[in-house]
Amino acid sequence: MNAFSETDNLANIVEIDDASDSRLDDIRNLNKSDSRPDLPGGKGLVIAEGNLIVPRLVRSRFPLRAIFGTPSKLAVLADALSTEEAKIAATVPWYSLSREIMAEAAGFDLHRGLLASADRAPELSPAEVYRGAKTLALLEGVGDHENIGALFRNAAGMGVDGVLFGAACADPLYRRSVRVSMGHVLTVPFATLEGTTTTWQRSLQELKDEGFRTVSMTPSGTVNLWDAMDTEKVAILVGAEGSGLTEHAMAATDVRARIPMSAGTDSLNVATSAAIAFYERLRAIAG
Amino acid sequence: MNAFSETDNLANIVEIDDASDSRLDDIRNLNKSDSRPDLPGGKGLVIAEGNLIVPRLVRSRFPLRAIFGTPSKLAVLADALSTEEAKIAATVPWYSLSREIMAEAAGFDLHRGLLASADRAPELSPAEVYRGAKTLALLEGVGDHENIGALFRNAAGMGVDGVLFGAACADPLYRRSVRVSMGHVLTVPFATLEGTTTTWQRSLQELKDEGFRTVSMTPSGTVNLWDAMDTEKVAILVGAEGSGLTEHAMAATDVRARIPMSAGTDSLNVATSAAIAFYERLRAIAG
Repeated sequence: MNAFSETDNLANIVEIDDASDSRLDDIRNLNKSDSRPDLPGGKGLVIAEGNLIVPRLVRSRFPLRAIFGTPSKLAVLADALSTEEAKIAATVPWYSLSREIMAEAAGFDLHRGLLASADRAPELSPAEVYRGAKTLALLEGVGDHENIGALFRNAAGMGVDGVLFGAACADPLYRRSVRVSMGHVLTVPFATLEGTTTTWQRSLQELKDEGFRTVSMTPSGTVNLWDAMDTEKVAILVGAEGSGLTEHAMAATDVRARIPMSAGTDSLNVATSAAIAFYERLRAIAG
Repeated sequence: MNAFSETDNLANIVEIDDASDSRLDDIRNLNKSDSRPDLPGGKGLVIAEGNLIVPRLVRSRFPLRAIFGTPSKLAVLADALSTEEAKIAATVPWYSLSREIMAEAAGFDLHRGLLASADRAPELSPAEVYRGAKTLALLEGVGDHENIGALFRNAAGMGVDGVLFGAACADPLYRRSVRVSMGHVLTVPFATLEGTTTTWQRSLQELKDEGFRTVSMTPSGTVNLWDAMDTEKVAILVGAEGSGLTEHAMAATDVRARIPMSAGTDSLNVATSAAIAFYERLRAIAG
């Protein structure tokens, strides 16, 4: 499959040989772009890197803006896109540039040699995320971009239908989260619950009314994880590494579940304990 | 509990105010020490960082050499050590130094302000690791220090008795592995199986003779993970991220087990899939 032969749109490839060209602004100073208030939403664009993730951005709900790559990487991408993806990709410019020009614009060497930019899509409402869902993940205070990325990767891999954010979580569309998630922050729907650090928990009632069993993951849980996942709908709550879920959040859930840990060891990394809960949920549905 | 009041050995604290002092050689240029062939085993010393991990090094099988810290961090450590740990720690020098001197010697700023060094202990034999064990992890081709560290952390937390290395794995005692493992590369016994990349698999027969069911973790598994963990002894095999276990290794195991993944997603990170297998094993024993 070839983006160009399919679409007859070869004219979209534009060569750029000057790093200061304004058409490279989407990928300029990438390490800093998420803090640039002049960009949409004050949070920067959505940036995808490499031949695994760029196609996921292309077919996501995020409006594609442009594709940037070395000539060879653009050719690989064109071959890798499905017919449907190629049609979308052909609606935006493809900028062909050397690895050096790309590094100069981005501010560091991009080993993968391929980038795509997209606008932030309008945020989904919580109801758009939980309606029709059987399994949700709900995060409180997870401030680490890599943990958020890993959580989305595992959510996508093990059939979690959506992710909800309570208070104090990091931006899932930050470039590092996109990369660590393998692009699945773009494919798994997410929304932010309304409220402050001490009021967002009221939204849990909404989930309960929708039939979700709300399960707090905590080392101090009163039931084993494997006894908590067998209802039709489940929302799995995980908290910040170290501090965990707030008591306020746990008190608002139906059950506190634990992974029994060996004496003298620490609680698991938040993405790891969530992955185990997703697995247990998958097992409960499939087993 | 106080290391000094317990042991009457306050004289062990030595102040150092010159970064070139040879007594700081154990922590000099830490980013490079693992490649220094002049150090024991050609692989450098074992270095632990911070008040969570240093006590684990103190009570480990690795012979403690010295402790380095800012005055306040040494005081916190002294309070945190158990009586038994304090006795061991009192047999080595405690070097008190400023954060600046520590940074100058180590080559970068150590946020935790506390380090300890130890010699590499003699390597254990595979039999020393599997004798008496009920659950083992066996790694092939896992070259990433963070994945190895995370795997040991999860192994310790979920009751895995030991770790065996097939060919082509990274050094578990590298500083970053020690840190990511939360010090559990020092507490969970490990050994390397003899042989090359294509011959180490013969050792699997030895494990089978000892009564272990050998289970390959692979997305192409023929049974679900939850149907593979219910024998008295289990050895869980995981391979490199991306390529996974070699066919040679999988062919030598009793069963190939899968975590069923959603369509259009990638296999899980090796430390994550191992963590899920450890959980399933824990569940099989406890449930």
